[in-house]
Amino acid sequence: MQSFEIDKSDLLRIKTALEGDDAGLEVVLQEYHASEIAILFEKLPQEAKERIINLLPADIASEVLSEMTEESHPEDLLLNMHPDKRSDIVEELDYDDATDIISQLEEHEQHEILQDIDQEDAHNIRALLKYDEDTAGGLMNSEIIKVNINLDKKEALDEIIRQSEEMEEFYTIYVVDDDDILQGILSIKSIIKARHDARVRDLVVRDFVYVKADLDQEDVAGLISQYNLTTIPVVDDNMKLLGRVTVDDIIDVMEQESTEDILKISGVSEDEELSGNWKEAVKSRLPWLVINLGTAYLAASIIRHFDSTVSQLPQIAAYMTIIAGMGGNAATQSLAVTVRRISLSDLSDAQAYNTVLKEFLVGLLNGAANGLIVFAIAMFYDADPLLGLVLFLAMTGNLVIAGLTGASIPLVLKRVGIDPAVASSIIITTFTDCAGFLLPLWLASKFLLHS
Amino acid sequence: MQSFEIDKSDLLRIKTALEGDDAGLEVVLQEYHASEIAILFEKLPQEAKERIINLLPADIASEVLSEMTEESHPEDLLLNMHPDKRSDIVEELDYDDATDIISQLEEHEQHEILQDIDQEDAHNIRALLKYDEDTAGGLMNSEIIKVNINLDKKEALDEIIRQSEEMEEFYTIYVVDDDDILQGILSIKSIIKARHDARVRDLVVRDFVYVKADLDQEDVAGLISQYNLTTIPVVDDNMKLLGRVTVDDIIDVMEQESTEDILKISGVSEDEELSGNWKEAVKSRLPWLVINLGTAYLAASIIRHFDSTVSQLPQIAAYMTIIAGMGGNAATQSLAVTVRRISLSDLSDAQAYNTVLKEFLVGLLNGAANGLIVFAIAMFYDADPLLGLVLFLAMTGNLVIAGLTGASIPLVLKRVGIDPAVASSIIITTFTDCAGFLLPLWLASKFLLHS
Repeated sequence: MQSFEIDKSDLLRIKTALEGDDAGLEVVLQEYHASEIAILFEKLPQEAKERIINLLPADIASEVLSEMTEESHPEDLLLNMHPDKRSDIVEELDYDDATDIISQLEEHEQHEILQDIDQEDAHNIRALLKYDEDTAGGLMNSEIIKVNINLDKKEALDEIIRQSEEMEEFYTIYVVDDDDILQGILSIKSIIKARHDARVRDLVVRDFVYVKADLDQEDVAGLISQYNLTTIPVVDDNMKLLGRVTVDDIIDVMEQESTEDILKISGVSEDEELSGNWKEAVKSRLPWLVINLGTAYLAASIIRHFDSTVSQLPQIAAYMTIIAGMGGNAATQSLAVTVRRISLSDLSDAQAYNTVLKEFLVGLLNGAANGLIVFAIAMFYDADPLLGLVLFLAMTGNLVIAGLTGASIPLVLKRVGIDPAVASSIIITTFTDCAGFLLPLWLASKFLLHS
Repeated sequence: MQSFEIDKSDLLRIKTALEGDDAGLEVVLQEYHASEIAILFEKLPQEAKERIINLLPADIASEVLSEMTEESHPEDLLLNMHPDKRSDIVEELDYDDATDIISQLEEHEQHEILQDIDQEDAHNIRALLKYDEDTAGGLMNSEIIKVNINLDKKEALDEIIRQSEEMEEFYTIYVVDDDDILQGILSIKSIIKARHDARVRDLVVRDFVYVKADLDQEDVAGLISQYNLTTIPVVDDNMKLLGRVTVDDIIDVMEQESTEDILKISGVSEDEELSGNWKEAVKSRLPWLVINLGTAYLAASIIRHFDSTVSQLPQIAAYMTIIAGMGGNAATQSLAVTVRRISLSDLSDAQAYNTVLKEFLVGLLNGAANGLIVFAIAMFYDADPLLGLVLFLAMTGNLVIAGLTGASIPLVLKRVGIDPAVASSIIITTFTDCAGFLLPLWLASKFLLHS
């Protein structure tokens, strides 16, 4: 297969084929990989998706469903399918993928699907449905290769080949004792190279990284990334082997966590689906906007205290919006750098101190640079050096406040256990808005008013 | 090894050990995995890092260097090392990791390091240094397992075991012809299970995904994620096999791309290192701030046109900052959702139209909701239903503009080939600032002034 991306011509081909009969559509579909069909599905109406999924052989259809994003709702396709076809597809799915899809359905729908399929499969999927989907248990797949520590080379190789029949790929062979307690891992290289009389006991590597089933998915991703793993075993509190999490599931987790970071830093609830409808979007964003409205009133109340300054010097109204806005922009810069740094690694006290110091310095320099521009414009436009000085000082001051708060607020929130991406933005904008109004108005009332 | 995270107590242990002699320090270091030492390095001064890296055996030291982030500058440690030790470490490094580190040095320093090491290793590293570090060629490792398509089972297995001696793990076996042209992949399962007289030719899978050496790393990451691969072969224009990119390198790319997205959307140049110094930060951020200053003057110039409105109705100055600020917040929400959607998948025309329509509706509803609050406050505080109406209309109008621009500007930029994360934020803030001042001032001048 050549490497290529799905583009408009592919979509057009499918759409044209959809207007024809099933035989022609099947021929066109055969040219696409399941993951490509899943991408095309994002751009097709529900009836087209249902027709295509029913035409595909069960093994391809199951791959398409497992590749569809959560937001394309594969569970709806599954639900609207003929029960026989549906059972075939569910039995083809990896347990973790089946669980992910089925977990999106109502309990009676889950029951309806699971009662029709192979009872061992149903049992395994029911076991996985118990785990929170954001944990190692929710991510893991229970289809693994495991061998008993007491086997010899031949027995182990036979067992590995037998167990790998049903799996597309295997990355790691797990070694357990008679009670299924995880003892270590076995590399395929070492067993192939071993002498004929070698035993698993002699080849097992006991130095390995594992996770408990209830560990948060973000921590699982961190370990896989840190130790460059392709797979990590999942155990219960007694070290009994439950399954494994593979790196491809972790890639999805990382994309999701990055999306949440970007949304949270922009005042969107992390639960909002990117392709969700307007109702969800209003529900997710309105609360943040109302909080912002409150802080905006707080900042605006400062202006009310300087009504006489504004009346006597109306051009200050324009300048103060510039200074407040620039403070907001500079604070967003400091905040983005700091929040991202925190989410990639914990900072020591010394690093935190240096970060704040650096942002103070950056604020001072950027503030002075922009302050000089504002000073020059005030000289040219208003021919008033005192006004220029007031604006220079206010700009510099507000960008220093922007740097200090942009760096320190997320660090403080992190220390007290609050997600720094969520609350930082609002707190910091409040600071830079208030200071952005207060500094020019107060300085102007001191130096510029002739009353 | 138990799964755990590095915390302060680990750092304290290392620091205490650093005060003692080398023997004691070595004992403490033995308890840490190379990737953990790399994390601890981020919090240690340069002299401590140099002392530790010199104490570690070459195989562990090379792993530490390869695990260090680019921002911790492993190349500086390498440069300041005794040439003999350095050669040992470079020879231990995977070619791709060695290339990544050495590429950060000046040309004469690169030459100095490479002339001292094994000449085959030097040749391979020099070949990799030619590729841009952001491409498949720059990411790839040339240490691969490849077998000739004409071998039989026994010859192939011997070859696989021989080649895997030097590798920690192998995920994929590549099949090439006599000219090193990639023919397909071979699964370890199929070769183990094959009959004794089977040949590689019969077992090769010819349906596989590959990339050209000059493909951008973001596209490589997309393919690996889309097809759930652990590794992808890299070829030249004649399909000659050059190396492979593994999923652990892709995880680093994804983290880096997400960081760039978050920085760019916040007006920070993508080149700014998260832990860079103040000089870099000023250089990265000042240009954006100056552009912002320009657009802020544009918005403020609107206020100057309504000087008489502001003098007669000074409380409008406070209200217009609230409406402009709320527009900026709502636009940031729409923008974050749209930019992230674009970066995860291309949108069809119909999807783009629906996105803009949705954001229009969300803006209308959130605008009306916040407009009602502002109306109520104006009634209570100023007892002026006309002022309330002006503010309600201005708030609703600005949040509609926020939704429309927040969704459509990144979509338009993407279509014309400009990175939507970079420029959107500034364009949109200009819109919401201008409309946030213009709407209340213009409506107030129409309905509220008694001149």
